[in-house]
Amino acid sequence: MRILVDVMSGDHPPHELVSGGVRAGRRRKLDIVFAGDPDLIRKALVACNARPGSSFEILPSTQVIRMDDPPVRSVREKPDSSTILGLRALRDGDVDAFVSPGNTGAILAGSVFSLGRVAEIPRPGILVALPTLTDQDILLIDVGANSDCQPDHLMHFALMGATYAREVIQIERPTIGLLNIGAERGKGNRLVESTYELLEAGRLPFVGNVEAHHLISERPVDVVVCDGFVGNICLKAIEGGVSAVTGMMKRRIHRYLLAKLGALFLTRTFGTIRKTLSYRQRGGAPLLGVNGVVVIAHGRSDAVAIESAIDVARREVEAGLIDHFSLGMKGWGDHGR
Amino acid sequence: MRILVDVMSGDHPPHELVSGGVRAGRRRKLDIVFAGDPDLIRKALVACNARPGSSFEILPSTQVIRMDDPPVRSVREKPDSSTILGLRALRDGDVDAFVSPGNTGAILAGSVFSLGRVAEIPRPGILVALPTLTDQDILLIDVGANSDCQPDHLMHFALMGATYAREVIQIERPTIGLLNIGAERGKGNRLVESTYELLEAGRLPFVGNVEAHHLISERPVDVVVCDGFVGNICLKAIEGGVSAVTGMMKRRIHRYLLAKLGALFLTRTFGTIRKTLSYRQRGGAPLLGVNGVVVIAHGRSDAVAIESAIDVARREVEAGLIDHFSLGMKGWGDHGR
Repeated sequence: MRILVDVMSGDHPPHELVSGGVRAGRRRKLDIVFAGDPDLIRKALVACNARPGSSFEILPSTQVIRMDDPPVRSVREKPDSSTILGLRALRDGDVDAFVSPGNTGAILAGSVFSLGRVAEIPRPGILVALPTLTDQDILLIDVGANSDCQPDHLMHFALMGATYAREVIQIERPTIGLLNIGAERGKGNRLVESTYELLEAGRLPFVGNVEAHHLISERPVDVVVCDGFVGNICLKAIEGGVSAVTGMMKRRIHRYLLAKLGALFLTRTFGTIRKTLSYRQRGGAPLLGVNGVVVIAHGRSDAVAIESAIDVARREVEAGLIDHFSLGMKGWGDHGR
Repeated sequence: MRILVDVMSGDHPPHELVSGGVRAGRRRKLDIVFAGDPDLIRKALVACNARPGSSFEILPSTQVIRMDDPPVRSVREKPDSSTILGLRALRDGDVDAFVSPGNTGAILAGSVFSLGRVAEIPRPGILVALPTLTDQDILLIDVGANSDCQPDHLMHFALMGATYAREVIQIERPTIGLLNIGAERGKGNRLVESTYELLEAGRLPFVGNVEAHHLISERPVDVVVCDGFVGNICLKAIEGGVSAVTGMMKRRIHRYLLAKLGALFLTRTFGTIRKTLSYRQRGGAPLLGVNGVVVIAHGRSDAVAIESAIDVARREVEAGLIDHFSLGMKGWGDHGR
C-alpha cells in the first residue's frame, strides 16, 4: 500500500512530518510518498537513516498552500502545491491514500475538484473519532465540511458514519444518534426535526437524539450526526471545557505548594488525561464521500500525530470503504436495524 | 422590591427552594412571594423561622407544570400552576420579577403569552453568564429560546447582551463577538455570514468572530452572540468537556493509591474548579426581550442556586433593563463604538 503525505502545509516543518511518515512506513510495511520540497525531504530522510527509493519516494512540488490561503482560489492558483499534486497522484491511482495537515478548506475543495464525489453521496463530510471515558471512541460527522446542510445531507453523513463504524472500526451493529438540544423527539431546529423523520423512516440503525454533554462521558451511541457548523462548534467547545479545567489546575499548582505536591502524585493521571482527551493532536479526520481516501490531520500535527493519521488512512484503504459507500442505502438492508 | 419564586417546578422539593428564597430575602432586604402549595410553603417557612406576612408571602396554586410537559399546551391547560400564576402576578405589577427552576419551554411560552415582547425586540433570548479563567464571566445569548433564527434576531440578541453587560454588569464599553467556526471574516454558515454584515454596519460594539474553544479560557469578548440551537449545544459541550476531565480524575483517584494521596493535597484545587466551572448550578439565566424580569434557574437548583438566581433578578430590576431595551438601537449612539 502506498500512502502520500503532504509535508509542506502543516504548522510543523517538513522534517518532523517526514520522520512520522518513515516511522509509519517501517512499522506498518507501507510505501510512503512525500509531497513537497525535494531537498528538504531528502535531508529529512537521511536524518531518519532512510533512503529515497521505492519505500520512501519524493513527489517534488514548488508551491505551498498556507493555512490562511482562501481555499477555492488557492486550489486554482497553486496547481504545483504539495496538496494539489498529492491529490492528483491519488486521482491517478499512483497512491492509495492522501494525508495532509494543511488548510482544511483547500483539501476539501481540491478533493471535490480532483477526485469528485461518490455517486450516491450528495456532500462529503469530515468525520472525527473523539476519545471518551469508555474504551471506545465516539464518531462525529460532519465537523466542518458543510456549514449549511439539508436533511438529506445529514442522512448521508449518518450513512457514511455508520458504514465507517462497521467496516473500519468493525462495530458489527453500530448505532446512530442525532446531535440535538434535548433527548425528546420534536426538539431542535427545523433541520434536525426533518432529519429525525428521515432517519426514523430509513434503514439506518438510528436510535434518537443525543446531547452534547453526554458524548464523551457516556458515549450514548457509536456515531453522532450533525451539520458541519454545529459539529465544529461542538468539537471546539468540548476542547474548551477540557482545557479550562487543565488550565485551572496548572495555575493553582504553580501557585500553591500543597497543590504542587499533590500534582506530583498525580503525574501519571494527568498524563493519561492529556493522552486520552487531546484529540486535536491525535490521528486524523477522514474526509468521507469523495472518490479517494483523504485524511485531514490537525495543522499542529507532529511526527506522532502524522504516524497516527497515516494509520487512519491505512485502515480505510484496507476496509475498501469507498466501495461500501457506493452501495448507498442498499448497504443497509434489514440487518441494519 | 418584591420577587416571586416558583417553588413547585424544580427538581428539588419546595422546602429547599423556600429556604433559598428566605435567605435571599433576609440578606438583600427583599420581599419574596412564593408561588405553590400553600401548606408546603407555610411549613417550609416555619422551618426557616420565618412567618408568612409582608416579607414572605404565599401565592397559592393548585397545578404544577412538570419538566416533561409539552410547553405550549401546559401553558394553556394549567392556568392555576405556580408558573402561570407567577407570571400573571408579574404582568399585573404585583411583583417586580419572576424566578423559576421549571420547564424552560413553558416559562418561555408563558412569558411571551402573559407579558408580551418588548416592542423593539423581535424574539426573546436566554442569556447565560459563563464563568471563565479570568475574573469575569462571559455572556452567551441565545442559549435555547430560538432554534431557528434570522440575522435580525441575532442582531437583537447582540443588542440585548450588550445592554445587559453595560447596565447590569456595568461594563462601560462592552464588546460583542459572533460565535463562529473560524476567526476570519467570511467563515461560517449563511446565518452568521449575514449577521456579520448586519453587525458590522450597525451601531453596536461588534469586534468580529469568536471560536468556542476560546470562550472560557481567554474570554475574548464580553458578549457572545449565536442562535439558540448552537448556543445550547456549545454550552452543553463545554460542560461535557469539563465533566470528562473531572470524571477521569475521579476514576483514577479511586483506583490508585498514589493518585488518592495526590488528590488529598489537591482537595482545595478541586473545590475551586467545581465552584468556578459548575455553571449549571450557578445563578440563573435571564430571559431577555419580554415585558418583565424573568429569570430561569437550572432545574437542579438547590437553595444556594435559587438565592443566586434571585440576585440575578434583583440586579436586572435595579438596572431598569427593560426601559433600556425599549430604546432599541437608539440606546447605542456613537458612544457605542
